[in-house]
Amino acid sequence: MTMGAVQEALAGLPLVDHHCHGAVTADLAPAAFESLLTEGEARPGSGISAFDTPAGVAVRRHCAPLLDLPRHAPAADYLARRTALGWAEVNRRLLSAAAAGVFCVDTGYAPHPLTSPAELARAAGATAYEVVRLETVAEAVARAGVEPGEYARAFRAAAEQAVRRPGVVAVKSVAAYRTGLALDPARPADDEVTGSARRWLAAGGRLADPVLIRHLLWTAVDLGLPLQLHTGFGDDDIRLHRADPALLTDWLHLTRGTVPVLLLHCWPYQRNAAFLAAVFEQVYLDVGLALHHAGPVRARAILEEALEITPFRKLLYSSDAYGVAEFHHLGALCFRKGLAALLQDRVDADELSLTDALRIAAWTGRDNARRLYGLPASDPARD
Amino acid sequence: MTMGAVQEALAGLPLVDHHCHGAVTADLAPAAFESLLTEGEARPGSGISAFDTPAGVAVRRHCAPLLDLPRHAPAADYLARRTALGWAEVNRRLLSAAAAGVFCVDTGYAPHPLTSPAELARAAGATAYEVVRLETVAEAVARAGVEPGEYARAFRAAAEQAVRRPGVVAVKSVAAYRTGLALDPARPADDEVTGSARRWLAAGGRLADPVLIRHLLWTAVDLGLPLQLHTGFGDDDIRLHRADPALLTDWLHLTRGTVPVLLLHCWPYQRNAAFLAAVFEQVYLDVGLALHHAGPVRARAILEEALEITPFRKLLYSSDAYGVAEFHHLGALCFRKGLAALLQDRVDADELSLTDALRIAAWTGRDNARRLYGLPASDPARD
Amino acid sequence: MTMGAVQEALAGLPLVDHHCHGAVTADLAPAAFESLLTEGEARPGSGISAFDTPAGVAVRRHCAPLLDLPRHAPAADYLARRTALGWAEVNRRLLSAAAAGVFCVDTGYAPHPLTSPAELARAAGATAYEVVRLETVAEAVARAGVEPGEYARAFRAAAEQAVRRPGVVAVKSVAAYRTGLALDPARPADDEVTGSARRWLAAGGRLADPVLIRHLLWTAVDLGLPLQLHTGFGDDDIRLHRADPALLTDWLHLTRGTVPVLLLHCWPYQRNAAFLAAVFEQVYLDVGLALHHAGPVRARAILEEALEITPFRKLLYSSDAYGVAEFHHLGALCFRKGLAALLQDRVDADELSLTDALRIAAWTGRDNARRLYGLPASDPARD
Repeated sequence: MTMGAVQEALAGLPLVDHHCHGAVTADLAPAAFESLLTEGEARPGSGISAFDTPAGVAVRRHCAPLLDLPRHAPAADYLARRTALGWAEVNRRLLSAAAAGVFCVDTGYAPHPLTSPAELARAAGATAYEVVRLETVAEAVARAGVEPGEYARAFRAAAEQAVRRPGVVAVKSVAAYRTGLALDPARPADDEVTGSARRWLAAGGRLADPVLIRHLLWTAVDLGLPLQLHTGFGDDDIRLHRADPALLTDWLHLTRGTVPVLLLHCWPYQRNAAFLAAVFEQVYLDVGLALHHAGPVRARAILEEALEITPFRKLLYSSDAYGVAEFHHLGALCFRKGLAALLQDRVDADELSLTDALRIAAWTGRDNARRLYGLPASDPARD
Repeated sequence: MTMGAVQEALAGLPLVDHHCHGAVTADLAPAAFESLLTEGEARPGSGISAFDTPAGVAVRRHCAPLLDLPRHAPAADYLARRTALGWAEVNRRLLSAAAAGVFCVDTGYAPHPLTSPAELARAAGATAYEVVRLETVAEAVARAGVEPGEYARAFRAAAEQAVRRPGVVAVKSVAAYRTGLALDPARPADDEVTGSARRWLAAGGRLADPVLIRHLLWTAVDLGLPLQLHTGFGDDDIRLHRADPALLTDWLHLTRGTVPVLLLHCWPYQRNAAFLAAVFEQVYLDVGLALHHAGPVRARAILEEALEITPFRKLLYSSDAYGVAEFHHLGALCFRKGLAALLQDRVDADELSLTDALRIAAWTGRDNARRLYGLPASDPARD
Repeated sequence: MTMGAVQEALAGLPLVDHHCHGAVTADLAPAAFESLLTEGEARPGSGISAFDTPAGVAVRRHCAPLLDLPRHAPAADYLARRTALGWAEVNRRLLSAAAAGVFCVDTGYAPHPLTSPAELARAAGATAYEVVRLETVAEAVARAGVEPGEYARAFRAAAEQAVRRPGVVAVKSVAAYRTGLALDPARPADDEVTGSARRWLAAGGRLADPVLIRHLLWTAVDLGLPLQLHTGFGDDDIRLHRADPALLTDWLHLTRGTVPVLLLHCWPYQRNAAFLAAVFEQVYLDVGLALHHAGPVRARAILEEALEITPFRKLLYSSDAYGVAEFHHLGALCFRKGLAALLQDRVDADELSLTDALRIAAWTGRDNARRLYGLPASDPARD
């Protein structure tokens, strides 16, 4: 198959993966690897393999050759070869294949031993920046011990300290997981925060109090950095209908003119996210996570919906890969293939000029993120 | 047009239609036939024919030839020919054309005179099993007379008796119609059930009390059989936004590790259902009803969304045909054509191996249902 | 490219644009023009142009040649040429290019100086009818001064007077903007209306009281004319999730057998709207506004979903163009191209007869609206 000009341009574009996680720095037993292939629960004894999914098919098709296996290699062969190569070599091969210039890494979620941003960058031959997950900051404040009346100040101070570290370009919230997005949009009053902090600090556990989550979101506004928000698709801890980004509308009205808001993942609410990006200056979106879970064929369809009415300055690329470097690679591959096919067809139908298509490819794959996070055009190595 | 290997395989696969109803055992006047062609209300005098729909077009295209008429025969010719052949012959031709090996028949909804499962099986040359609709069981208990304090026990006993009958493979609830799916997920306390039963038994009417519907769902869990749940599309008695399967998430957490839950229909929430199937071990889905109402062209698009992130072990086939055997046939045809086109294109693009495509076709069309309901591989005749 | 028979038929069909607004009767500075290209806010200094959207690309591709520019002309050239030609000539060219036979014009929203329906008709060489926006009527009643106890009678009288004017064919409500559609469906009692009117008349501002909005919808039912309802997509004043037309289900049950209800725009809830159109006799839909904002490529995809289960008598065409005549043209172009491609492919696949395809094209593009609004087949000039 000959490549169109858009395909070529996207194939050669060093992407900015503006939201991902590290790759595991250990060899993974088959069950552990499979559990990282799915957002679902492990299914020991169920006879259902996590390879029997669109993501599993995509791994066997597109990652197997990078491990010297034929396309569509059986799952058992894939697992065996992965083990034989060892995690470091596997990570190196798959992360380089992603051909991203930049990774922005959420360092606040790490149930497995993971590459640091610097290690990820080194393995990939790329640059890494860091995204600070605010719930993790708040929970560290609670664990360290704080008086309820001091919680707001202590959290704010800890967050400011966290974002002052070199390489930090954004903050992130998983409010969608903790309370859902149908929150009272207003900034909570001090005494509300103190009361909720008292209850949470006494009870312990993860941060899921609606007042404190609102407070966290408003603290993000005060910090002044771009704010990444989980929306839509995730693991079974999500209530999908409460992760619809449209639920943020009232809050977006109140925070207009402050920080950029990046709606992550969005699937299956990519059209709702596109609406918000079309009408609010500060809103941006990506369809990370869904890309590699749906695979390259459907990635195009998801991108078509994500771009249906979206200003071309508003779509970004992310993989949201976690744990297995297969997903850092597949995310990039699905984005490149899906977007290229979509744009090339429009060029071929004379609905879009080639110049515009190339501009849209470069914007969404790299330049929108650079612009938003203030990344240097030259992608200097991080450390 | 030459057939691809996947098309051929699906054309020859004896499907398991894991959720359908009987066909009418009477000749139908034109208005009665048209009213069965639509989920909408009859429109006498409106000048709008139920044939002027995607389903009507599909009947004229794909069923007319089975009644010896040309493709796209006019509606009047179709109705006349149907009458001339008589219901028994029409049912025989259309049900055989479906080429299903197995029908699982919901016997709890029968406003028309319908084939029994055995009669349906005989006309189709297939095997039939039965699905027990629990609301119908509960309403029979109420009609027979029961003390409020005895309702829970009596319902449980009646349900156990119903599912012990030979050939019963599953239970079903239409909670989506009665209360919607945004229910308190917890098992109701005994005294709540008694109180609600008292009010319902006094008031009469169909079962639509939220406490008793929750109780019914939890009784289904106790019965231990796979539970089919109506979600999404239906007639005007549905509040579509309250039939979003994502609303079941809290309940699915509580019932994890118990019975398989089969989300029926799902349209237009097939992506939300796919999410649940991807993250909960016990969740499965189909896109029955939507297939024949959308017709073969759009059936593919709906299946694409239903499979976007769905593990291949989690999609099943159903027609949800009711009343007219046209729909038993069209459901099967839409599924075969839609899925084959989807899979063949992926094989042709080398995104899927042919072996995998054939496996996915056999799984979703037959084997997943066999596995889940414990059906014999040989499909012995039922009686 | 040779044209199929369906393309030809749709290209020559004088559409009924059953819901649009006037075009601006003044030359527009670049920023003013750009702000009319988007449902979003102006972005002065943001470096983001409203041309960098699917709608902007479509304007440069499909409107530039009508202003004597090459396809895909740069935005700056487009703006300069528009200014050079002057608003009257631009309107004349673009409105004629739409090749609609009829425009039904919502006259109740006019922050800019706009063509009257007669002026729009004259510029387009078409006929215009008028749609009365009921919130505007109610607000005029309030502005004129009325006792709370008299509000209901005065509003009803004003609405009756408004719809008696020649050329008025429908009423419209933007309840979706004011309160959202999750309203108590029941007709409010007189004293509720009086109480709410008292509060509103004292407080002033636009009509957004839930009781008065319900009262407005029920007054629309009393008026007896077709009722157009904004649903789905709009500007940032919409809470998208509260504009889902499925939320109207209870109200549609209560108003069954009264006035036709036309669900406008619907995107991204076109499938939910299609469901309502399939099951309620009185419900119709269009996908106006989304057509030109998505552009011709995605217009087809949106129409595919809108028609997925919709009776062919139930889909109408509208542009919902406001302000810039580019959108009156693009709406028509997107509808024609999208629908023709969809129907022609079905004819080519022998899933639809050509006769049926031509009928569906004529119905949805013109005849359904004529039938519903009682428009003469000959489209006599309006005044």
